[in-house]
Amino acid sequence: MPQKFVLLVTFLITFSANAQTAQQRVRQYRQANETALLDEYREFLSIPNVSADSVNIRKNASFILQMMKKRGISGMLLDGPTPGTTPAVFGEVRVPGAKKTIVFYAHYDGQPVNPKQWAGGLQPFVPVFITAPIEQGGTIVTTYKSGDPIDPTWRLAGRGSADDKAGVMTILNAYDALVKSKIPLTANLKFLFEGEEEVGSTHLGAIFDKHRDKLASDLWIIADGPRHVSGKPIVQFGVRGDVNMYLTVYGAKRPLHSGNYGNWAPNPAMRLVKLLASMKDDNDQVIIKGFYDDVVPLTVSEKQAMANVPNMEAALKKELGIAKPDGNGAPFVDLLMRPTLNINGIQSANVGAMAGNIIPTKAEAVLDLRLVRGNDVTRQMGRVVDHIRAQGYQVLDHEPTDAERQQYPKLIKIQTGVGYNAQRTPMDLPIAQEVIAAVQSASTEQIVLSPSSGGSLPLYLFEKVLKANVVSVPVVNYDNNQHAENENVKVQYLWEGIEILSAIMLIK
Amino acid sequence: MPQKFVLLVTFLITFSANAQTAQQRVRQYRQANETALLDEYREFLSIPNVSADSVNIRKNASFILQMMKKRGISGMLLDGPTPGTTPAVFGEVRVPGAKKTIVFYAHYDGQPVNPKQWAGGLQPFVPVFITAPIEQGGTIVTTYKSGDPIDPTWRLAGRGSADDKAGVMTILNAYDALVKSKIPLTANLKFLFEGEEEVGSTHLGAIFDKHRDKLASDLWIIADGPRHVSGKPIVQFGVRGDVNMYLTVYGAKRPLHSGNYGNWAPNPAMRLVKLLASMKDDNDQVIIKGFYDDVVPLTVSEKQAMANVPNMEAALKKELGIAKPDGNGAPFVDLLMRPTLNINGIQSANVGAMAGNIIPTKAEAVLDLRLVRGNDVTRQMGRVVDHIRAQGYQVLDHEPTDAERQQYPKLIKIQTGVGYNAQRTPMDLPIAQEVIAAVQSASTEQIVLSPSSGGSLPLYLFEKVLKANVVSVPVVNYDNNQHAENENVKVQYLWEGIEILSAIMLIK
Repeated sequence: MPQKFVLLVTFLITFSANAQTAQQRVRQYRQANETALLDEYREFLSIPNVSADSVNIRKNASFILQMMKKRGISGMLLDGPTPGTTPAVFGEVRVPGAKKTIVFYAHYDGQPVNPKQWAGGLQPFVPVFITAPIEQGGTIVTTYKSGDPIDPTWRLAGRGSADDKAGVMTILNAYDALVKSKIPLTANLKFLFEGEEEVGSTHLGAIFDKHRDKLASDLWIIADGPRHVSGKPIVQFGVRGDVNMYLTVYGAKRPLHSGNYGNWAPNPAMRLVKLLASMKDDNDQVIIKGFYDDVVPLTVSEKQAMANVPNMEAALKKELGIAKPDGNGAPFVDLLMRPTLNINGIQSANVGAMAGNIIPTKAEAVLDLRLVRGNDVTRQMGRVVDHIRAQGYQVLDHEPTDAERQQYPKLIKIQTGVGYNAQRTPMDLPIAQEVIAAVQSASTEQIVLSPSSGGSLPLYLFEKVLKANVVSVPVVNYDNNQHAENENVKVQYLWEGIEILSAIMLIK
Repeated sequence: MPQKFVLLVTFLITFSANAQTAQQRVRQYRQANETALLDEYREFLSIPNVSADSVNIRKNASFILQMMKKRGISGMLLDGPTPGTTPAVFGEVRVPGAKKTIVFYAHYDGQPVNPKQWAGGLQPFVPVFITAPIEQGGTIVTTYKSGDPIDPTWRLAGRGSADDKAGVMTILNAYDALVKSKIPLTANLKFLFEGEEEVGSTHLGAIFDKHRDKLASDLWIIADGPRHVSGKPIVQFGVRGDVNMYLTVYGAKRPLHSGNYGNWAPNPAMRLVKLLASMKDDNDQVIIKGFYDDVVPLTVSEKQAMANVPNMEAALKKELGIAKPDGNGAPFVDLLMRPTLNINGIQSANVGAMAGNIIPTKAEAVLDLRLVRGNDVTRQMGRVVDHIRAQGYQVLDHEPTDAERQQYPKLIKIQTGVGYNAQRTPMDLPIAQEVIAAVQSASTEQIVLSPSSGGSLPLYLFEKVLKANVVSVPVVNYDNNQHAENENVKVQYLWEGIEILSAIMLIK
């Protein structure tokens, strides 16, 4: 047996034995305190947390400071660059002799709510247990009162229950379980809970910049988003970047009778469809020059991890009503590692009963570009703009003037959103391997390793501003109605989240 | 000088001399009666005439019967196939010894109105004189009272003032002017005023069928629509046909996160744009197989007439803000003689502030196909459907079932509107030439001859059901805000309309 392998096995056995013991003790602590944990969590969920509701957002921040205080964590608010910025809540635990510092991140703000859309008697900020998702016939457990046994298959429903107060809850209780179970800490621990993630983390970079020293670490753990569709725990090492482009193509200044002008007046809808169609070939590949050029090839570890991701395509195709996915046969996970060009929406004049026999005055489309490691958001958008110019368009950043209309046969207005690059932490880093081992140690099944989520978060900020390694360890169930009505978290996922995160806290 | 030319010149001189005399007498009659003519017309315009308003529509029909009675025309209502159908108003004047029978058509119903959109103090059914179009700074002539001199450059504003009570007004007054001026009639005259043109002439075919004998004739004159953009009188010998197609392309059953599914889940907006883009080449030619195959070539007379149509392209390009029209350099009038494929509207998910980073569930487009002589509406739509099938689509007439979603990679729902074929009367027919000569005789400038309007009317019914020749002789100004707010007719155009139509009534 090669020595390297012997060492690895020894390490795994040792680690696993220690962690298992710790895990059992964490579990026992949780089992003894389920009512208290969920009473506190329900109180937390009953504080409205829509990002724009600055009064209630601060109540949430205060509640988290109290939670920290109860657990012996010295906490404080980290304010942003300008007065009135939603503060982040910061806490720190220093451990003598520790060699590593790990920061645990979650966000306490939530998406806007429309209470009318919540069904089955649910209200966004009146957290209740439900027997199953409302959409699958679940009902409120009306008989429940504090102190009753809690079925771990129940779900706790309310805005933020999954996205992402569950991160705050499981992080602070993972820490508390270790302390209360008298398991010695091995790393310095920090906690950062953001209050404006759902509005684009507008000030996160500035907060990082201002509190750079306080936030120094070896590793950030992001407890946000759902576990894998298969239900298995997942460790994600990156996210795609994202940016929107807003296109408007112009025709005549007023809507024209399609009979009196048909064949003569340019139709901006036809021009826009030809323009958009020119961006992809029939195999769904983007054919904009250089679109895939910057992509950094996947590493061996990344490829191997992807090969081990459970294949959910058959189930997804059935659920979603798709006979043949895009991508010319490439596996789902591979496709998420490539940049995208997606049409979010398109509109010109009207369809259905409101449609008229006209030639529209303009046609609009919104694109989103997802970016992967190697892509630069400005460069990638530039390629799209270059492609549009190559189709003969004069590119404007404003409505065309009369003079521009007379001068240029093809006019397009292009506006762009605030975008950011992808982030990916190499899976081969020793600390990445330690996270994998910790999460695996807390799970009875083979965990899923993903080099990158298909979705986007501004994790590039952690790399760029803090020079930090970032790894995502989501804790909640996949079917949590994130961002939508009837949001919920499965109780068992909270319990497992506490065990998984406490295992990571024991990295040496 | 060849004999044929001598004869033609003789004919023109003779005809012109007779008509000129009659025209002068018609003009004198009108000049002596302007107040009475416009008092009656204003009363007519104050009866609301939205097609769906069946109570008021019948008041309009009664008013027209009274107008006929005052002029000694025996009138009646022609009912449709089912009780409650909006009646057409019919009148007839038999002339002993007449060799020809001419029917004059107009419609008395109007487009829906939104009084809030009417500006400058205008109300749809309170007709008033205005000094110029409201959009060009015109104002109401508030000082006017019945009996005051009427400036012929004024406009009379109100729904139906141009489209198409002006047809009824000028037809009946042209007849009256001839009779009151004691000019001997030479043809049997009939009058048909329809009450549901603006809702698609739903029962016109059935009314024709039911009253076929009563409506027998040598010629129909359609007094509807505007004169040429140049302001010159126009004689139109045809219309394009028209039909709508409603397309819906399907993606996944629910909106998907564009990050978590981007590159994998088919995007119906991208599929629809590729499908629509495949229908035209970069020179704006439709590349659907056979799309132009059925087009009957233009005759020598038609080509010559088109060559003489005043070229308004430079003015139109300026007015509409178009640097380069479609059609690869072909003249405007030529392009109106070809079939079209036009996108009326397109929509998938949202654009602008409502756009989300999603992959939409469906994408919709509405097409209209304009048809020319030779095209058959069913065959032409069939070509579009065949083209769509050739792009790999399974064509449905319903929302896809789960089984269909599983079976077919590309699904499209296609629905079609009620369509009809083009109609074109050969310009070489002797009776067509007589109409041209009559209209020219009543005009001081070179009239415009158009083999076909770019727009559509169900004139094929006249050919198909009544085996009749049909020629359109529009009377109103081009800038009349037809179908829109602030509709108006220029008074001078009413006066000229009376002269033009009376000249046609004198065809022998």
